[in-house]
Amino acid sequence: MNHIKADWIAVDWGTTHIRVWAMTKAGEVLANGLSDKGMNQLSPDAFEPALLELIEHWLPKDRTIKVIACGMVGAKQGWVEASYQNVPCYPAKDMTLTKASTLDPRIECFILPGLMQASPVDIMRGEECQIAGLISDDAAFDAVVCLPGTHAKWVRVVRGEVKNFSTYMTGELFSLLSEHSVLRHSINTDKHNSALSDPHFFAGVAQAVKDPQLFSAQLFSIRAQSIASDLDAVHARSTLSGLLIGAELAATEDLWRKHKVTLIGSKVLAGLYEKALQMLGAHSVVVNANEMTLAGLALAYKQISN
Amino acid sequence: MNHIKADWIAVDWGTTHIRVWAMTKAGEVLANGLSDKGMNQLSPDAFEPALLELIEHWLPKDRTIKVIACGMVGAKQGWVEASYQNVPCYPAKDMTLTKASTLDPRIECFILPGLMQASPVDIMRGEECQIAGLISDDAAFDAVVCLPGTHAKWVRVVRGEVKNFSTYMTGELFSLLSEHSVLRHSINTDKHNSALSDPHFFAGVAQAVKDPQLFSAQLFSIRAQSIASDLDAVHARSTLSGLLIGAELAATEDLWRKHKVTLIGSKVLAGLYEKALQMLGAHSVVVNANEMTLAGLALAYKQISN
Repeated sequence: MNHIKADWIAVDWGTTHIRVWAMTKAGEVLANGLSDKGMNQLSPDAFEPALLELIEHWLPKDRTIKVIACGMVGAKQGWVEASYQNVPCYPAKDMTLTKASTLDPRIECFILPGLMQASPVDIMRGEECQIAGLISDDAAFDAVVCLPGTHAKWVRVVRGEVKNFSTYMTGELFSLLSEHSVLRHSINTDKHNSALSDPHFFAGVAQAVKDPQLFSAQLFSIRAQSIASDLDAVHARSTLSGLLIGAELAATEDLWRKHKVTLIGSKVLAGLYEKALQMLGAHSVVVNANEMTLAGLALAYKQISN
Repeated sequence: MNHIKADWIAVDWGTTHIRVWAMTKAGEVLANGLSDKGMNQLSPDAFEPALLELIEHWLPKDRTIKVIACGMVGAKQGWVEASYQNVPCYPAKDMTLTKASTLDPRIECFILPGLMQASPVDIMRGEECQIAGLISDDAAFDAVVCLPGTHAKWVRVVRGEVKNFSTYMTGELFSLLSEHSVLRHSINTDKHNSALSDPHFFAGVAQAVKDPQLFSAQLFSIRAQSIASDLDAVHARSTLSGLLIGAELAATEDLWRKHKVTLIGSKVLAGLYEKALQMLGAHSVVVNANEMTLAGLALAYKQISN
């Protein structure tokens, strides 16, 4: 039954999902799994069963296997609160892992620390693993990194060190506005048709970057256009997406005007940022998010295995 | 039973509530009523019964009484779609009222037109009645008017004419963010304790006016401060309120820097704007919203009675 000979197990445990990978020492993926048992629906004693459910069939009988996890699993409301590292810091080195206590003797679980910034106050939990993976063992690594998502992060890395970062509620605002605000009457939210209209998306980006102080008026304008001139629901969705990404780009203009941006994210979402940056005359490159997560977890595994 | 001798009935029918007043020709209020049968829960044929429920006991047996209504009752999803007047226009004159058909012969109902702006596209329904009341019959009336609320309006009036206006989703963003976003974990939403901390409110206003392009980062900072430094939940609510009103003031700086602002709104909400404007060195005066609504409806009544 159990043909998988994993050396360790990698876990990306976020608010809504848990992803697991059976890994070799060399960083090869032997198998993977996914469930919707995210942090936000588990009480502290439900984490271990949720994990075992996914990895049980990978566990050797004769020894303990190390499990390395990142993400909201380490939040105060998670399995066990993992520490935060204060920036500036080297997320790819000196990881202070927090051990989660387990009943099953076959596993030994460790959680990565988040990042904390004193001024302006900011926090990160999950993305630091991808940043660590991106930096890897390159002591000369410089980058401006953007991680799109519910709470998008922009991170300045200089010689392998995270200098500072900032968080934007872009993804969450998109959900709230398109599903719960007055704009929901005007916006297409058909999950089977998430295509966007480029001209409307670009117009939204341009508007937000040009007049960021008008953000809240620009949002309402979607509703007004829908009533006054029957704005198409897909066009409305595209405008909203453009306005929100544009607002984030207005805030980070200093970064993308001077540096190439490394986007860590899904093809679709990072692709939107790439298009917007290109329109604004900036350069960017998209890096696969899962690969960076695995690379970051592998660094942590290596650290505690030495 | 029926001691009220109303000459006409004034109605403010919004999304969530209906307010009615029994009026004399001279504009005196004889009685009033309120119910939660707002536009958003009524099908077209439920409007007349919802109205009669509140005003039945004021109706004379021997004649028809005029009912003048403003607000979302005239929206597409309302009782009957009332027209929009295009700005620039004189909302206190030339009101094109839309008649709602009624089964009960004792009432004759008219709805005020909304306002529509072609560029930038914008719409208004309800506030135009208060603006009409404010302008009244003063042909020389000049003002910058701010109507705080779910969708706050800023309106430029020159010699009794609405030149242009803009809408900000300030109130709706406050509800969404404090009740449905990640910030809800950090923010006091106790309805019995809506007091704000002045220093946090003012700091929020100042921050948003100074760096409006950082709006979405400033929002997330509330959550970060709550995790990193145990930001008090009332302080968090005050900061959010300040940031949102500040974002609106950043957008309208040209107006309040040059003109005194007339705030039409509730004591509490208009009071916050007044405080914020005062801190920014601007002048404002608060005008009672219900009085302006009644004055605007009275103008419409006068127009169809002549």
